[in-house]
Amino acid sequence: MSRTHKIAIIPGDGIGRDVIPAAQQVLDRAAALCGFTLAYHPFDWSCETYHATGRMMPDDGITQLADHDAIFLGAVGYPGVPDHISLWGLLIPIRREFDQYVNLRPVRLLPGVPCPLANKKPGDIDFWVVRENVEGEYSQIGGRMFAGTNREFVEQTAIFTRFGTDRILRFAFDLATKLGRNHVTSATKSNGIFHSMPFWDERFAAIAATYPETRIDQYHIDILAARFVMSPERFDVVVGSNLFGDILSDLGPGVTGTIAVAPSANLNPERKFPSMFEPVHGSAPDIAGKGIANPVGAIWAGAMMLEHLGETEAAALVMHAIESALADPATPRTPDLGGVGTMSALNAAIVEQCGK
Amino acid sequence: MSRTHKIAIIPGDGIGRDVIPAAQQVLDRAAALCGFTLAYHPFDWSCETYHATGRMMPDDGITQLADHDAIFLGAVGYPGVPDHISLWGLLIPIRREFDQYVNLRPVRLLPGVPCPLANKKPGDIDFWVVRENVEGEYSQIGGRMFAGTNREFVEQTAIFTRFGTDRILRFAFDLATKLGRNHVTSATKSNGIFHSMPFWDERFAAIAATYPETRIDQYHIDILAARFVMSPERFDVVVGSNLFGDILSDLGPGVTGTIAVAPSANLNPERKFPSMFEPVHGSAPDIAGKGIANPVGAIWAGAMMLEHLGETEAAALVMHAIESALADPATPRTPDLGGVGTMSALNAAIVEQCGK
Ligand SMILES: CC(C)[C@H](C(=O)O)[C@@H](O)C(=O)O
Ligand SMILES: CC(C)[C@H](C(=O)O)[C@@H](O)C(=O)O
Repeated sequence: MSRTHKIAIIPGDGIGRDVIPAAQQVLDRAAALCGFTLAYHPFDWSCETYHATGRMMPDDGITQLADHDAIFLGAVGYPGVPDHISLWGLLIPIRREFDQYVNLRPVRLLPGVPCPLANKKPGDIDFWVVRENVEGEYSQIGGRMFAGTNREFVEQTAIFTRFGTDRILRFAFDLATKLGRNHVTSATKSNGIFHSMPFWDERFAAIAATYPETRIDQYHIDILAARFVMSPERFDVVVGSNLFGDILSDLGPGVTGTIAVAPSANLNPERKFPSMFEPVHGSAPDIAGKGIANPVGAIWAGAMMLEHLGETEAAALVMHAIESALADPATPRTPDLGGVGTMSALNAAIVEQCGK
Repeated sequence: MSRTHKIAIIPGDGIGRDVIPAAQQVLDRAAALCGFTLAYHPFDWSCETYHATGRMMPDDGITQLADHDAIFLGAVGYPGVPDHISLWGLLIPIRREFDQYVNLRPVRLLPGVPCPLANKKPGDIDFWVVRENVEGEYSQIGGRMFAGTNREFVEQTAIFTRFGTDRILRFAFDLATKLGRNHVTSATKSNGIFHSMPFWDERFAAIAATYPETRIDQYHIDILAARFVMSPERFDVVVGSNLFGDILSDLGPGVTGTIAVAPSANLNPERKFPSMFEPVHGSAPDIAGKGIANPVGAIWAGAMMLEHLGETEAAALVMHAIESALADPATPRTPDLGGVGTMSALNAAIVEQCGK
């Protein structure tokens, strides 16, 4: 009997519903070639669910997901449901309840993807953003006073624990070691953000001291963002707080051409809970259902999922398929890549390359 | 007798001490041509002052500055003095005590400045970042518990008032109107930051409703950063909180080639207190005193100061001088512009162009 991995599928909203089924075709092909099975369990949780039930997912949603080897998510959010409701009702609770404290995002210039920077070729830009994923600036602590009056104000409190800070920093250093690229860059803002960022710097220095063979540097987030554009070659592993990591891991893909090809892994490295894999792009309501979404972000996220499941060979097949399809000028391209092709046509080309 | 403007000069640290005297030469030339005088009053407040006195500026520093028409600042910060001390001891108190609640920063691709983006020419990128400058994420509210133990954590609280939010938004809409470019983009993150950003969006909608002729859009800061790289042409006026504005107003100059040419105006629009003008770049200790800093950021900041003082003609002379000097291939260029020239040589070329 062949190996089986139980995968919870949450297509979610908008183009999430387009790209997830497309990506499944590629993953299934790799699985077949490598002799294992992906057993999918779909969950139809979305803004539509919210409209019908007043909740993004059922009360026992987290429990329903718990018994899976991984979660494969499309995108969450749709016009008519305020973002802070849709996201804090589904995506963010999953990240937190399953202690997926690492958000790992590659920034890599792929062949055949037009790069907005001058004179860059595949290989020039290739690094990882490690984002803290469960605490920091994303917090429900705070509130509003004097609502509706001229004295109205809101407080928004960020929480940085030593426990949470140290473990994300350690993950970044371990990743750099594992990759054989002993260089970690910290995103900070200790000149402007008074309590949290000086603390972040302290912990960065303390953890760095336990990795003496690793080269370190740190930049304030403002200049770091500029350097992503001016000298993206210099980075290997960049570690940042929940917010800074969020910004950098969209900016990075922007610098390499299109958000639509970028993947994201929400990891519980201890494997106590399932990890979640999703494209970086959002639900893109304007093109949802039109059959022109770019499936690459979802497929690449799927490759990261296979890697996490221990299916290294299958993951490599999928990555190879993405790269050879994109490198081939004859491959149909979706509009975000400057083409006029459909999602299905691009996806078929990738399936076709899988195992070749 | 000719008009005189009283200018407080704070060169500060590092290359601040190089570029401020250089910029003064250009401003003086423009003033002479236009028949007014800039009366400079130097203040030697810096990290050296801190080493000597334990304070970045004297107790009555703010009072000493109050009686000036404008403040012209170089850069603050030097190795050996933690940033959050040097900045919160000088730059940030000046911004706050003088209620300089607008930080205004142009993002413009200048002739002769190499652009990291492919296929862009001067004119393609030309917009303004309006940053809230006295509240928001920059706050001393918060603290630390269980220091030195495994339970250690810090809290960092951001404060957004309706008063502070509304006035910066209004400034942005008024600027768009004044420029005849009726388009304002709001930087938000209401899908992740729970209290403050949904509030920011509410106020943006409320203020926008009072400017019905102005086109609006809003992006989450992560995707907005990516769009600065992928489609910088689309922006006219971008308004953001203290932190988001900080990031965007370094990223913007990064996209147009070099932070070193970008200026920044800290405005008290009501003119109850002096406004402050400074280059966007920092103190750059690695090149301080070597005579190779780029003076353009400081000079451009000086032009914004002249504009604020009502010396519109002189401001235009200075901007013209910067642009013609940079456009001339014979002009010596500092290393950040890809050249081997000195600051003095570049500065002399700009002085030379002033009034031509
Ligand atoms: C030095 C620092 C406190 C400052 C800021 O963050 O405001 C700087 O980055 C700026 O943009 O003027
Ligand atoms: C949708 C939003 C809450 C989310 C985030 O900010 O974490 C997204 O931008 C991401 O990066 O996954």
